[in-house]
Amino acid sequence: MRLATLDDGSKDGCLIVVSPDGGSYAPAPVANLQAALEDWDAIAPRLAAINAFPHALDANRLLAPLPRAWQWLDGSVYPSHGALMDKVLGVAPEKPPFPQMYQGVSDTFHAPRADVPMADEALGIDFEGEFGIITKAVPMGTPASEAGAYIALVVQINDWSLRKLAGPEMKTGFGWIQAKPPCGMAPFAITPDELGEYWRNFRPALHLNVQWNGAPFGNAYGEPMAYGFHELVAHAARTRHLVAGTVIGSGTVSNETYREVGSSCIAERRGIEMVDYGAPRTEFMSYGDSVRMEARLPDGSAPFGVLEQKVVKA
Amino acid sequence: MRLATLDDGSKDGCLIVVSPDGGSYAPAPVANLQAALEDWDAIAPRLAAINAFPHALDANRLLAPLPRAWQWLDGSVYPSHGALMDKVLGVAPEKPPFPQMYQGVSDTFHAPRADVPMADEALGIDFEGEFGIITKAVPMGTPASEAGAYIALVVQINDWSLRKLAGPEMKTGFGWIQAKPPCGMAPFAITPDELGEYWRNFRPALHLNVQWNGAPFGNAYGEPMAYGFHELVAHAARTRHLVAGTVIGSGTVSNETYREVGSSCIAERRGIEMVDYGAPRTEFMSYGDSVRMEARLPDGSAPFGVLEQKVVKA
Repeated sequence: MRLATLDDGSKDGCLIVVSPDGGSYAPAPVANLQAALEDWDAIAPRLAAINAFPHALDANRLLAPLPRAWQWLDGSVYPSHGALMDKVLGVAPEKPPFPQMYQGVSDTFHAPRADVPMADEALGIDFEGEFGIITKAVPMGTPASEAGAYIALVVQINDWSLRKLAGPEMKTGFGWIQAKPPCGMAPFAITPDELGEYWRNFRPALHLNVQWNGAPFGNAYGEPMAYGFHELVAHAARTRHLVAGTVIGSGTVSNETYREVGSSCIAERRGIEMVDYGAPRTEFMSYGDSVRMEARLPDGSAPFGVLEQKVVKA
Repeated sequence: MRLATLDDGSKDGCLIVVSPDGGSYAPAPVANLQAALEDWDAIAPRLAAINAFPHALDANRLLAPLPRAWQWLDGSVYPSHGALMDKVLGVAPEKPPFPQMYQGVSDTFHAPRADVPMADEALGIDFEGEFGIITKAVPMGTPASEAGAYIALVVQINDWSLRKLAGPEMKTGFGWIQAKPPCGMAPFAITPDELGEYWRNFRPALHLNVQWNGAPFGNAYGEPMAYGFHELVAHAARTRHLVAGTVIGSGTVSNETYREVGSSCIAERRGIEMVDYGAPRTEFMSYGDSVRMEARLPDGSAPFGVLEQKVVKA
């Protein structure tokens, strides 16, 4: 099942069920995705039973599947990304025996084709291609062995970052506020079964194709997460309940073979350049730059649709 | 103007306007506080004009004034607190030239008289007495000189903390997830004018009386914030817009004279004991323990009402 959210002028938009080919839709019998998630076990079967899609889908009318959420927790569980980032940011944090995770701004997820306003071009504007999941309500203390059952949907995320602010904030130990403006989300939120055998041990086993201003930038593979999403849910829920509609991210998709597959953010390429040349050569984004992200299955299909966002001056 | 939220079974509760003596209330002509904040300039004068309070107020029926928020950003701007905490947590983070701030869980603020469920008594359960503000919508890039005008309400917060988890999370640089379960909020959210001359340069110039299991624990003074709330709003809004209903905290109220005035959290007392005796002597909270927090004006009145919460096993 593929779900999306049409812009109807409201803050939460209007939930729709999207056809298998992504070209048409049916209205959902519930106001919005947040409402559906709050009663997911009853509503999901009704959404899945829809098999007629009478309306043509205009991708430009789509909001993020969840345009705002009560909670956004972003992991960083691709080890090859963490090592390069420490180099780029000039930090040397401890690598803990648990998944790294921060809480980010959740009141806004930008639409898949949004112009994204940034405060200052000089702050090191960067994209981060990620996978994410959206949960049902999760009781406090749910163990990883049970946490996978609370994953309702899988999503694809662009975690916008301001790199010049990231190192100084990280050194405080308090995490990021200014370095992490709102994220974007690809058009379709999908149930894990949509990925079939490519949803493995609660990891998305597909490539994330990233283009910057139309040029290929990365095609990293999603599976080598050091922790699966079930473990990220359990980590987040150890001392708090998670409300329905909690979004949890993987962190930037990254592979040890980054020299072959490329990267899902600019900072990682700069880290490689620092290793190779002693200094970065690739600049961060400028106003007017665009990024396109599209996870693809081996048959070439894009289960989350295409995210294509442009940076503009706020 | 004093506002509160009655438990009517809904997630956001029912907004009420409270009488000057705190003993009675009138229903507000808007569904809940979040809705009021989204149209604050129009609605606040209507609320302020209410001068008949026909219903007796039962404090046990009150939720947090804002039972859930889209964003909770907590500063740490009392310098004497930060220095002691580094000692207690065994960390030595850089003290940056900007206010320390983390983003915490905002989907739940516990009621003023809630039993607060905790996952494990061994995790170092602690209270943190704070002041906070709730904003109208704040445009990205609002400077401190203009940010004070976006402060709608002042609140009193108990930022529950799990100290045994705080140091390891802080060392990752990602901030806290497990160490910071949901906060509590005192009964009344008040407009700054309710504090009169005791709202000074966007700082609450009143004492926060804290009792642990009925025994006096602290009575720290709120004014000596290194940054005023206007500066915290500006810091938070530098690279993101703030949605209406964003809650921003001061961090634990603390004074350089903590040996005389006491502390607003147990960890700080343990820090003092480490200085005096080489090791802490005061244990953290046990199940069944209670904390009472009540900010008082010189005339003895409690503008935010009384927060009194008990720790229970989840």
